[in-house]
Amino acid sequence: MTSTTPTPADLQVEQKINSSLEDLRRLCAQPSVAAQGQGLDECAELVARMLQERGFETQIMPVPAAPPAVYAFRKGASDRTLIFYNHYDVQPAEPLELWETPPFEPTIRDGRLYARGVVDDKGHIACRLAAIDALLAAGGELPCNVKFLIEGGEEIGSPGLPTFVRENRELLAADACIWEFGGVNFEGRPFVVLGMRGICYVELRVRTASLDAHSGLGGSIFPNAAWRLVWALSSLKGTDERIRIPGYYDSVRPPSPRDLQLLAALPNEEDDLKRTYGLDGFLNGMTGTELRRAAVFEPTCTICGLTSGYQQEGSKTVLPAYASAKIDFRLVPDQTAEEVVSKLRRHLDEHGFEDIEIVLLGGENPAKVDPDDPFILLTIQAAEEVYGAPPVVSPMSGGSGPIHPFVEYLGVPVSNSGIGYPGAQVHAPNEHVRIADFISGAKHTARVLQRFGAMEG
Amino acid sequence: MTSTTPTPADLQVEQKINSSLEDLRRLCAQPSVAAQGQGLDECAELVARMLQERGFETQIMPVPAAPPAVYAFRKGASDRTLIFYNHYDVQPAEPLELWETPPFEPTIRDGRLYARGVVDDKGHIACRLAAIDALLAAGGELPCNVKFLIEGGEEIGSPGLPTFVRENRELLAADACIWEFGGVNFEGRPFVVLGMRGICYVELRVRTASLDAHSGLGGSIFPNAAWRLVWALSSLKGTDERIRIPGYYDSVRPPSPRDLQLLAALPNEEDDLKRTYGLDGFLNGMTGTELRRAAVFEPTCTICGLTSGYQQEGSKTVLPAYASAKIDFRLVPDQTAEEVVSKLRRHLDEHGFEDIEIVLLGGENPAKVDPDDPFILLTIQAAEEVYGAPPVVSPMSGGSGPIHPFVEYLGVPVSNSGIGYPGAQVHAPNEHVRIADFISGAKHTARVLQRFGAMEG
Repeated sequence: MTSTTPTPADLQVEQKINSSLEDLRRLCAQPSVAAQGQGLDECAELVARMLQERGFETQIMPVPAAPPAVYAFRKGASDRTLIFYNHYDVQPAEPLELWETPPFEPTIRDGRLYARGVVDDKGHIACRLAAIDALLAAGGELPCNVKFLIEGGEEIGSPGLPTFVRENRELLAADACIWEFGGVNFEGRPFVVLGMRGICYVELRVRTASLDAHSGLGGSIFPNAAWRLVWALSSLKGTDERIRIPGYYDSVRPPSPRDLQLLAALPNEEDDLKRTYGLDGFLNGMTGTELRRAAVFEPTCTICGLTSGYQQEGSKTVLPAYASAKIDFRLVPDQTAEEVVSKLRRHLDEHGFEDIEIVLLGGENPAKVDPDDPFILLTIQAAEEVYGAPPVVSPMSGGSGPIHPFVEYLGVPVSNSGIGYPGAQVHAPNEHVRIADFISGAKHTARVLQRFGAMEG
Repeated sequence: MTSTTPTPADLQVEQKINSSLEDLRRLCAQPSVAAQGQGLDECAELVARMLQERGFETQIMPVPAAPPAVYAFRKGASDRTLIFYNHYDVQPAEPLELWETPPFEPTIRDGRLYARGVVDDKGHIACRLAAIDALLAAGGELPCNVKFLIEGGEEIGSPGLPTFVRENRELLAADACIWEFGGVNFEGRPFVVLGMRGICYVELRVRTASLDAHSGLGGSIFPNAAWRLVWALSSLKGTDERIRIPGYYDSVRPPSPRDLQLLAALPNEEDDLKRTYGLDGFLNGMTGTELRRAAVFEPTCTICGLTSGYQQEGSKTVLPAYASAKIDFRLVPDQTAEEVVSKLRRHLDEHGFEDIEIVLLGGENPAKVDPDDPFILLTIQAAEEVYGAPPVVSPMSGGSGPIHPFVEYLGVPVSNSGIGYPGAQVHAPNEHVRIADFISGAKHTARVLQRFGAMEG
């Protein structure tokens, strides 16, 4: 399949690529590490300034328990409104010694721009700006109203964002949303993801004594924190992978026939996964559509970490007074992080584990987007035209993000456009964008805005 | 109760105390850290030389998988033979910054001598030498034949010692044994310990993939090493503290009525333990003789350490490819470390945990000494005379040591004499001996040799 005739906006994207990359360099040269509280106000101001330069009204707004968010609005030709969700914060750049060029000194090599955040997510902000610049240059105005919500706490779990969106739902009101990421898979096919699992991340902690004891002294008579933790954990999930917290599955909505159809149409990545992770196979011998269904439509209970007692080489005869575990529950519609914490507490109490403390480290609710929503079909069609290949459409992502408040409080369909590819080293040293992907992403974004502005209201 | 009239040997111990402490300084000034392979040959040679100076024939003998041992023999007045078991190796001195004076520069302050190993176990070697010097000065000869086996690998679990003792049982043949430690409790009462639990220390390891995965990707479909470990561990022991490995208790010999009598006569340390460790109570609400019985006559399965995945502050959404646990089984007569490993392997296999690797990090078998053996009664009587108080007699120690080959292959009763007290900071910075304890320990040792030489053969 070949791509369709270039639009005037396509030509403008190409013509303005140097100035767009210069925008991206400016963004990436401003450190903005949420986890380290570095440069966040400065970056919010820079982003607001760049939007003002394009005729947007902007507000820098406080978000509870998080860095400020940038809100922006510019009126367009139609009455329809599209909102872009993005974030200006980035992951920490460490380990610095693994970067070939400094993370906050954006550098072009071999058709790629390297910097921390150059894909996640400053490249997506710049991609939206490039699309807007192209549309303004080609047509003098935007085809629809455009809003931005660009937060500063995505890399620390978007605390406060659900509250912020709920409380500002009138200001943020829109008819559709383009999410913070997008791009192509290894084969160069664009992708659209129609929802995200939620997450409830907790630390379980138990202290059984004020100090560690000698295992020869206490082994038969002292409580052992590591044993308490192991027993509590083993009550949560059996070797059959079924989660045993009463009511955990009560609000799980099974995938629809349309979801299963989409799953069946996804490319088979089983061999790639097996090779990459050195696996003989998958849990419970799953394969095919069953495996793809489980990967995104099953809620999880994953132990992410275990800590207790002596962990170095060799033996130390110690009886640990303290133990902890990190647990990541991935949630599917219509589960909520709040209900999981309360069901977990009740379960532990009922099994005699009142001594196990639950510390909530982060929660995001899941959300699902209708695959047949006209906006979704529009973004898919636009992608096929730009990339010359039909997008890979996933009915749900296994990962999580703050999509729930957009779907729930703003009531918008959420689709993707963007500049990523699987080798971009997002969150890792030498994060980079391929300039060709940036151009395609900007063209796709511009085309989505055009089509959306032309839609029946 | 007051102590009896001083013997000539008692007077000689006091008269020669400065030269005895000088011996102890010489020993402590020679580092000999088994875990770090530091100064072991030099220390073995020094010990042999000090014994030669007292008319002992010595041999420095290789021990499989361990530093060399010093064997020594000197003929005495009677045909009966007593063997001293000691060790010249010491624990690492780290953390060095917590020592008030350098660990290998022995220093006297306030009636105490400070140095690494000054109690454990070089002070006990010097205590034996002080007793021998006193007896030779008082009587011109030793009252019985005396042998020494002074190993260099006690602090790394005495690997090779059981084999060494078995293979050299004729050379080491004796009628009785004095163990490497002894001394007084906080009240100043001497103690005698009539056996030791064994130990089987293993690391359980499991690898489920070649690298960690994102928990959003693999949470429902990838095997998780932490979960495998938790499930395997939880199959080993229930919350009732009963170990579920089939046959684990088969060879457990229950304590005898005499053992229970000795347990009932022990001082009640429950409040001390609760205060020291911040405990509300003990496992299963145990108290009194039941608690003391469990503390030393029950075999254990203690998790000493747990490691997997992300263990720092906050959250990381990782699915661990690797997990491990350190497990310490304390064994009671007639369990063996070998049988525990094979029963554990069979149990794991039968529960579907063939993927859990068992790495044996150390094993020592338990052994028990007859409380009514005439030699034990002799050492108790001698202690009462020297210390002016009846000894605390424990029918078993909760801790472990290489006592089994002495009881099993040499067939000797094993008792204690020594210089320790509970505040001696053994294995910790500022390890020290109180000089008064050193004197009492040497007097007790000399009195044991005298009485033993005079026993009916």
